[in-house]
Amino acid sequence: MNLHNNMELFFQKEEEYLPHLSIDCVIFGFHGDRLKVLLLKLKGIMLHTLPGGFVLKRDSMDTAAQKILQERTGLEHIYLEQFSVFGGLDRSDSHLMQDLFFQINNPVPANHWLLQRFISVGYYALVDFSKVVTTVGLFDESCEWYDLQELPHLAFDHETIIYKALESLRIMLDYKLVAFNLLPETFTMKELQVLYETILGKPLRRDNFQRKMLSMGMLERIEKKYTGAANKAPYLYRIVR
Amino acid sequence: MNLHNNMELFFQKEEEYLPHLSIDCVIFGFHGDRLKVLLLKLKGIMLHTLPGGFVLKRDSMDTAAQKILQERTGLEHIYLEQFSVFGGLDRSDSHLMQDLFFQINNPVPANHWLLQRFISVGYYALVDFSKVVTTVGLFDESCEWYDLQELPHLAFDHETIIYKALESLRIMLDYKLVAFNLLPETFTMKELQVLYETILGKPLRRDNFQRKMLSMGMLERIEKKYTGAANKAPYLYRIVR
Repeated sequence: MNLHNNMELFFQKEEEYLPHLSIDCVIFGFHGDRLKVLLLKLKGIMLHTLPGGFVLKRDSMDTAAQKILQERTGLEHIYLEQFSVFGGLDRSDSHLMQDLFFQINNPVPANHWLLQRFISVGYYALVDFSKVVTTVGLFDESCEWYDLQELPHLAFDHETIIYKALESLRIMLDYKLVAFNLLPETFTMKELQVLYETILGKPLRRDNFQRKMLSMGMLERIEKKYTGAANKAPYLYRIVR
Repeated sequence: MNLHNNMELFFQKEEEYLPHLSIDCVIFGFHGDRLKVLLLKLKGIMLHTLPGGFVLKRDSMDTAAQKILQERTGLEHIYLEQFSVFGGLDRSDSHLMQDLFFQINNPVPANHWLLQRFISVGYYALVDFSKVVTTVGLFDESCEWYDLQELPHLAFDHETIIYKALESLRIMLDYKLVAFNLLPETFTMKELQVLYETILGKPLRRDNFQRKMLSMGMLERIEKKYTGAANKAPYLYRIVR
């Protein structure tokens, strides 16, 4: 199935999409003790946006979000949470949209419904940074990871969407073990703790952290191989699926 | 402003509403140590629904939700959280919708867009049970409180929506002090604890609970009046606004 160029398809078969409804995805990755987010740089404009798209009438919301994520990251079965809806009256920017269309040599009529109001459904995704192969879309110059501490200038209300996603992720951390989706298949307890500390933006006590993680009953400790040498390497864990 | 009969307006000025988009509200109240939810009984059909409605193109999502709540409860400035979007393909039931239209002697053409797919944005509201004056709508026989433990048969995916709202409320309880919205203006620590225990469905330790609530820095203890008698009444609290 070719999922590329959702936007191009959108021009051709506008009537197949739900009007006034979009999806914006905050794709979190973790690398070098930093939380990252995947952003698109718009063609010819000094603005970045979140990866997003529209919803085919024949797709569920969740399917539409998975397709957008797959298109940008190359990954299937991504961990995804729908966290909020952005339905304010002031969130669209028809001038920016017209500039964008102009950049791709495709000016739209003033009443084109892409210039009308959009309600956006926000999803955040947690991905293993090392597995992502990014792909640019029709409007984009680049698709790259940005440090959450050093976000570039963002279009529309996308900065608000990112911070709301981070807030939701922080709440969810206390509630269920989801953060492992940001790590490779096996990880040390220390790596898991650094990830939590990065997301929460504060240090955690090692003994409390370890007790809490193990009490969730989702972590499996992998037996060390007997090497003959004094084994000082830390235990590796993986998720019980 | 007359907000009554949102649905009637909807028939008259269909083009003023965003298509394919609805709002469903889970209105929680607390009475007699039970958590209640406000439901509508449909005219002539043994099914109940959540109060809901549609979004005017000139209203933000949050404004539209406030209007629906005000219409049903008579209350303004209700505590409201948008908690999830219901965007599955199988959630509509065009036969039920046709039956409903038939009940109000207003059959609709088979291609009427009310019979098409709807994405619903779920909001939950926390209200002071004692202040609510319920109002029925065009499709409704009654608008009443139901015990969350004894829900009647619900239309569409509304039971799923209620349980998802409860799950979100439980997560939010740990995160910020919102539950006081379900209580009268002043309350005892014991009343607050019973409310938490009811929502969470489990007993809590009194000392831990009190410490946690006070540590949030949002509760103000009201001084007791000096009555001359031995004063054994518990302290009353209210929220610092």
